[in-house]
Amino acid sequence: MGTKYTIGIDYGTLSARALLVDVNTGEEIETALYEYPHGVMDTFLPDHKTRLMPDFALQHPQDYIDALQFTVTELLKKTGISKEDVIGICSDFTECSMLPVDEKGIPLCFQERYKTNPHSYVKLWKHHAAQDEASQLNQIAEMRGEAFLKRYGGKISSEWMFPKIWQILDEDPELYHDTAKFMELADWATMQLTGVERKNSCTAGYKAIWHKREGFPSKAFFKALHPALENVIDEKFNPVVIPIGSAAGQITKEAAALTGLKEGTIVAVGIGDAHAAVPAVGITEPGKMLMIMGTSTCHMMLGEKEAMVPGMCGVVEDGIIPGYYGYEAGQSCVGDHFQWFKDHCVPEAYEKEAKERGIHIFALLSEKAEKLRPGQSGLLALDWWNGNRSVLVDVDLTGLIIGMTLLTRPEEIYRALIEATAFGTKMIVETFREYGVPVNELYAAGGIAEKNQLMMQIYADVTNMDIKIAASPQAPALGAAIYAAVAAGKERGGYDDIYTAANVMGKVKDLYYTPNKESVSVYQSLYEEYKKLHDYFGRGENTVMKRLKKIKENVYYVNER
Amino acid sequence: MGTKYTIGIDYGTLSARALLVDVNTGEEIETALYEYPHGVMDTFLPDHKTRLMPDFALQHPQDYIDALQFTVTELLKKTGISKEDVIGICSDFTECSMLPVDEKGIPLCFQERYKTNPHSYVKLWKHHAAQDEASQLNQIAEMRGEAFLKRYGGKISSEWMFPKIWQILDEDPELYHDTAKFMELADWATMQLTGVERKNSCTAGYKAIWHKREGFPSKAFFKALHPALENVIDEKFNPVVIPIGSAAGQITKEAAALTGLKEGTIVAVGIGDAHAAVPAVGITEPGKMLMIMGTSTCHMMLGEKEAMVPGMCGVVEDGIIPGYYGYEAGQSCVGDHFQWFKDHCVPEAYEKEAKERGIHIFALLSEKAEKLRPGQSGLLALDWWNGNRSVLVDVDLTGLIIGMTLLTRPEEIYRALIEATAFGTKMIVETFREYGVPVNELYAAGGIAEKNQLMMQIYADVTNMDIKIAASPQAPALGAAIYAAVAAGKERGGYDDIYTAANVMGKVKDLYYTPNKESVSVYQSLYEEYKKLHDYFGRGENTVMKRLKKIKENVYYVNER
Repeated sequence: MGTKYTIGIDYGTLSARALLVDVNTGEEIETALYEYPHGVMDTFLPDHKTRLMPDFALQHPQDYIDALQFTVTELLKKTGISKEDVIGICSDFTECSMLPVDEKGIPLCFQERYKTNPHSYVKLWKHHAAQDEASQLNQIAEMRGEAFLKRYGGKISSEWMFPKIWQILDEDPELYHDTAKFMELADWATMQLTGVERKNSCTAGYKAIWHKREGFPSKAFFKALHPALENVIDEKFNPVVIPIGSAAGQITKEAAALTGLKEGTIVAVGIGDAHAAVPAVGITEPGKMLMIMGTSTCHMMLGEKEAMVPGMCGVVEDGIIPGYYGYEAGQSCVGDHFQWFKDHCVPEAYEKEAKERGIHIFALLSEKAEKLRPGQSGLLALDWWNGNRSVLVDVDLTGLIIGMTLLTRPEEIYRALIEATAFGTKMIVETFREYGVPVNELYAAGGIAEKNQLMMQIYADVTNMDIKIAASPQAPALGAAIYAAVAAGKERGGYDDIYTAANVMGKVKDLYYTPNKESVSVYQSLYEEYKKLHDYFGRGENTVMKRLKKIKENVYYVNER
Repeated sequence: MGTKYTIGIDYGTLSARALLVDVNTGEEIETALYEYPHGVMDTFLPDHKTRLMPDFALQHPQDYIDALQFTVTELLKKTGISKEDVIGICSDFTECSMLPVDEKGIPLCFQERYKTNPHSYVKLWKHHAAQDEASQLNQIAEMRGEAFLKRYGGKISSEWMFPKIWQILDEDPELYHDTAKFMELADWATMQLTGVERKNSCTAGYKAIWHKREGFPSKAFFKALHPALENVIDEKFNPVVIPIGSAAGQITKEAAALTGLKEGTIVAVGIGDAHAAVPAVGITEPGKMLMIMGTSTCHMMLGEKEAMVPGMCGVVEDGIIPGYYGYEAGQSCVGDHFQWFKDHCVPEAYEKEAKERGIHIFALLSEKAEKLRPGQSGLLALDWWNGNRSVLVDVDLTGLIIGMTLLTRPEEIYRALIEATAFGTKMIVETFREYGVPVNELYAAGGIAEKNQLMMQIYADVTNMDIKIAASPQAPALGAAIYAAVAAGKERGGYDDIYTAANVMGKVKDLYYTPNKESVSVYQSLYEEYKKLHDYFGRGENTVMKRLKKIKENVYYVNER
């Protein structure tokens, strides 16, 4: 048997990227990128007339089909590899991105009569207009003592499946009625290849409150939300959930024509994009935490048992790696934090210096911040500019900086913000440990992990752990390709299990970050201070942040932002 | 009797300004300015060779003599007013600025052998190199239970007289020995006109621990500091203190030749510059607080009795207006705060907009901040960038901002810093009230009061009091001219008491700031939050600011600032 390949397609927020990988070595042979022509729709529908309400974030599903066609065709063309040697394909997708479809799985927005109806399009993960529904859902779940709440750190996010479905029911009952199925896009993208719907255990678990043993929430719960929702699972949902790494089906004749792949090629069930990165760094066992660091950070962990760790985003059996409980935690403001600082707090003189030296302003800030030693600035921050996801699960918390003097300089504040996110990560790690889920090693993937050495060193020093960095800059696509190899199975040239596959195909860089002893000790002292402020402001002793928000809301806004 | 005039000379940090005032109306006829050629010496002596130690801030007394000659001559020349019609003169000076002199009052630095000795020059108010002595002095005073400590909010500042004298003794015992007198510059400047030394009750009280009934600290106390200091008062100090508003003497023949004034013209005793501003706004009775707002703010108040208000800078009988107890409080970071923000936190886009529109960056910030309503930003700050003077008296406290989100904009932070200083003022006002010293009206003088309407309106809204603004941009010089009229007396065309004099000659602008009812109520809520944070971080519940400073000190500084 000659060299075999799999393809991972990573559907991101603004583009999709397909990656062709050598199954025997994990080598990334070629990639192809397709930017969505419609991008994120947050002001108008494609007719340029229908205006969207605030907090809407929609996409056009045609973009995904076009992306699939373009990228896979491109991969085969560029590499000249025979379609016979591509043994599997798998899609990972932003999550929860969802779509109402008809009986055949065709998006309602493709129907003429729904073209100008926003609810017929894809609700992207960052569609935030279902907050009312999410708040009500949480209140009702809490009142009813629903056990599932604990598995999600006490709160279901407005970004997830059921608030989004409920919003559609609230705002357009007719469209709700006309919908045959509400589908997670990871599954819908997979269905474009197989012609059949297969719900994956990852996004079902993390975004649609599914539990391997308990299933979905009860009819009584859904009825308590809204009488019309009572049978939402049976009527509008495919209740059968398949573990990730399984085959969802095979490439249909139509999909073969579209992509150039061979009819009958194995298609793995879909997976959420963040979760797909875990096998891409070779993690298939408990004790190793992967941080996927971008505008925000996701923390992925495996555990042997189902522990209720406060403030995590979710625990799902078979959610990340089949056979384990997959834990997810998160920090809601990481890259966004530094972007805010760069946009609004960097003085003219620094911009000028960066221009004169021909370097990026972030490079200049890092250079200056790198010269500071831990503790030298006297500053400490709480990284809550966008609320706190783990471990406090409180969107109403806000940022804090303490320790400024007249000598405080911008690079000191910049470094304090980085340190604050590192303390936030340490808080998550320690909480997992405290609740019986060991964390022994740290891995990092994503743009920040790739580029920001200062930050990664600070994380190593603050957590007092080595940090290994994903070798692939496209870890989710690589992870999908690994799952494709598992779904294809050994017989076809793939693997029979994810452990072997990830071991061979997943990779980290040779260079890794290791804690500096002196820094560790200073950061230990600073972390004690962080923790004290964290608990004082975050656990109800002084709820000033909430009261300030309340005062803010009560103010009549003379000027719109 | 035709129109009579007095002259007030205000010796500031970088220049001296003389003001000729019509005694009958308070009209400011003419001013003359002289910039000190030596400025503030903080790196080298005038020989450009002798390097100064860190925290030194010296001046050259010849500059004051030259300023006196130039400005008074200039006033008479420019106005053509006869020296016969100038009935009095008075000097106000930065405080405590002090100088070692010989038996005749001649500065030691005028002697050839002391020319290269830093300790022979004027130690300017902001000379901060006597911190060790100040700390020791406070420790010893506390151990001995010295009652005077309470009159100074529990702490004697390193800027004041005795730490500065002690530093000289510590570092140059020979020069200490050769010194006939250590003089406050307000008194020394006066002596240049009269030929005799007269110690004024204002700077003696606020800067040299003098009390009208109890005198100076005891010999035993001084001995406890250092054996050689036991008799410092008798040996190195003129112990006779004269109330402000009294005559110190008359213009000598030499001074007449120097200035063009008539020999025999009445010279009032000197006064500290901040305190001189009080009669200039017409305040001569209790209940009215004057804020002198510059890089920092001084709060001046009169009271009927001697109350021990925690955290004030001092209470001195006859210290501000004879016949009353003069209270002083302070905020150590006001204008400095906004300067810091402007220098280090304003993004390039704002600088560009200001340049394009041809306005100052502060004007742009104010314009943007003015559009915000109280509470709209959700931000709250503690104004401790330079420690806290009143009411906590703690230099080790540092700044704090809370409430930031990813939508927080620079003008919101700028406004929060202004509001923080206003809350600091409210805290001072409420503390005075709580300890039995009523505050019914607010007055403001200084550059900020003059120019920053946004800030003054915020102060009115936060304190819920009208704020009247000094009519004169040179309130200290006007105050000195008023005291000169009192020292001259009614017979010569002046006044017999400060009450009448200040009533006629002191002035506020017609326009004043009055609280906006809606804003008052929002600020009341925000102040409650400020107070809670103030007490939590400032009164020992969480001493994180001090611990961060300690950590900072322990860090080995790779890079000097």
